[in-house]
Amino acid sequence: VTADVLATTDAWGIFTHGSKNVRGYLRRLKAGGLRATGRPHLAAEGPAWGVVDGDSALGMVTSVFAMQTAIAKARACGIAYVGVRNSCHFGAAGYYAWLAAREGLIGLSMANDIPSVAAPGSRGGITGSNPISYSVPAGRHSPLLLDMSTATVAGGKVYAARTRGERIPDTWLIGADGKPTTDPSGYPDVGALQPAAGHKGYGIALLIEALSGILSGAAFTWRVGTWMWDDGTKPTNHGAAFLAIDTNAIMPAAEFARRMEALVDEIHASPKADGVERLYVPGEMEWARHERAMKDGVQLPPDVIASLQEAARMTGLNSAGLFV
Amino acid sequence: VTADVLATTDAWGIFTHGSKNVRGYLRRLKAGGLRATGRPHLAAEGPAWGVVDGDSALGMVTSVFAMQTAIAKARACGIAYVGVRNSCHFGAAGYYAWLAAREGLIGLSMANDIPSVAAPGSRGGITGSNPISYSVPAGRHSPLLLDMSTATVAGGKVYAARTRGERIPDTWLIGADGKPTTDPSGYPDVGALQPAAGHKGYGIALLIEALSGILSGAAFTWRVGTWMWDDGTKPTNHGAAFLAIDTNAIMPAAEFARRMEALVDEIHASPKADGVERLYVPGEMEWARHERAMKDGVQLPPDVIASLQEAARMTGLNSAGLFV
Repeated sequence: VTADVLATTDAWGIFTHGSKNVRGYLRRLKAGGLRATGRPHLAAEGPAWGVVDGDSALGMVTSVFAMQTAIAKARACGIAYVGVRNSCHFGAAGYYAWLAAREGLIGLSMANDIPSVAAPGSRGGITGSNPISYSVPAGRHSPLLLDMSTATVAGGKVYAARTRGERIPDTWLIGADGKPTTDPSGYPDVGALQPAAGHKGYGIALLIEALSGILSGAAFTWRVGTWMWDDGTKPTNHGAAFLAIDTNAIMPAAEFARRMEALVDEIHASPKADGVERLYVPGEMEWARHERAMKDGVQLPPDVIASLQEAARMTGLNSAGLFV
Repeated sequence: VTADVLATTDAWGIFTHGSKNVRGYLRRLKAGGLRATGRPHLAAEGPAWGVVDGDSALGMVTSVFAMQTAIAKARACGIAYVGVRNSCHFGAAGYYAWLAAREGLIGLSMANDIPSVAAPGSRGGITGSNPISYSVPAGRHSPLLLDMSTATVAGGKVYAARTRGERIPDTWLIGADGKPTTDPSGYPDVGALQPAAGHKGYGIALLIEALSGILSGAAFTWRVGTWMWDDGTKPTNHGAAFLAIDTNAIMPAAEFARRMEALVDEIHASPKADGVERLYVPGEMEWARHERAMKDGVQLPPDVIASLQEAARMTGLNSAGLFV
């Protein structure tokens, strides 16, 4: 399950959340904070809801189980919510939303994480980067697929600017005094990322915290463990939430498809700004990369290959000749 | 019903969406595009979903009926979705989300509108300002309450800058060429508002369109009528969507309250940026205004009073002495 999640993520070109992280997951599996024998299971459920205890299995395994549960319940009731506790980093939120869209349902997925993003006026992190994703089937078009963090940018972009010694836009980061800064040199030790669109991104991050962390019974904000840096022997107890809506229960499939196609076609045909060749709907760039990857394979960037080689060393696997 | 929606909105200090709009609603009611005798009803339903046909009644009446339906279904199933068609402008999305939170449920509400917001790279409007709101009960604290449009700013702010002859930040508007502009003089005839946080706000606006406009069977994008300017004899056929999640079904009420209180208390106690006295959670400012309004009444701004006086003239009501 995890291999499919990570390879699909790489095929979409989202290399920060794909197989690059195998190394980190292996470290926790070896240390025991992630349990190779963990079995995610429904701790509680009702007609259109469930709460999954991940039993500290890999976040991907738990999340796929949770979304499959949400899909089955949505087919019976029209919509379903499944909260998740005792999970870990789940990779790209978009994979789970797409699981629903692949079967003709609208899917939403979201998760909490340790605080790294400021609230308006705060001096440090208040919410996690709290990603949210949705996917909507769109008839003959690829499903709409949005996968976004609620911060302005990913921490990796700030870190890259720091490494290159460059300044950053003043909407990305706050410094030690809690004010916007263009100097990334203190990151990630002081300050925090800025929320996307200020109070809007902050507000959405708190909804995600409520649905993923609070209502699921998971850890929330500072109680969450960092999957990458913390003591690998301890579970991180990340939370997540998955929603599925069975459009086929609500509207004839052909009508829903026709209406989504009309929406996408209308956007494609809309007037473009000077110099712009094409308007995209969410996910179109990722699906184009995915199509190329299915034909030609995935061209992994050097940092991903280096990480996979390190993972191979950790497991005693001879990686010579694996990456050509 | 509409009076309570609009007066509550004024009490929150959201005067753009409160009783100021009575005049516009009356115009449509007189012309027939809004039907005073319209009766919103369930056109289709399942265990955890419903589709409400608003019968061109006032958007507030239809939306309250729809959220009450969602609340009842969520109590039975854990979560519910209710889509709405044949509605009109519904005012402040936050009112309906709060209806759910007032009864201990998490509420979400959203609606579509005629295109006024750009997509990345577009030359004009692609999505409506497509508002979304959520409200989460928070124990001894007031419910979290976020009500936001998916544009960077409300069109009213651009219009006000234009009236004052001022420049605007380059993240608010695109001009006739589809590029960001600091000149509001062409608004609203050319260009469009920019989506909040670029592709993120655009992506969320499309999810709102799918849930409010597509899945409900309502009009979507350019097919929606403008409630303020269009021929008042014609229905606008706005769409909307309401979700309710019954936290009491999923987690003991006291535990959910305790966890939400811990989250809010933690934010209040977090370090603040230099010069910042207080960190807010969504809705706190509105609830503080609401509390003052319940004690001292609502201090209506001059533009709202002028609009209400015009509404009084339209109906032959003598408004002399009504506003002191």
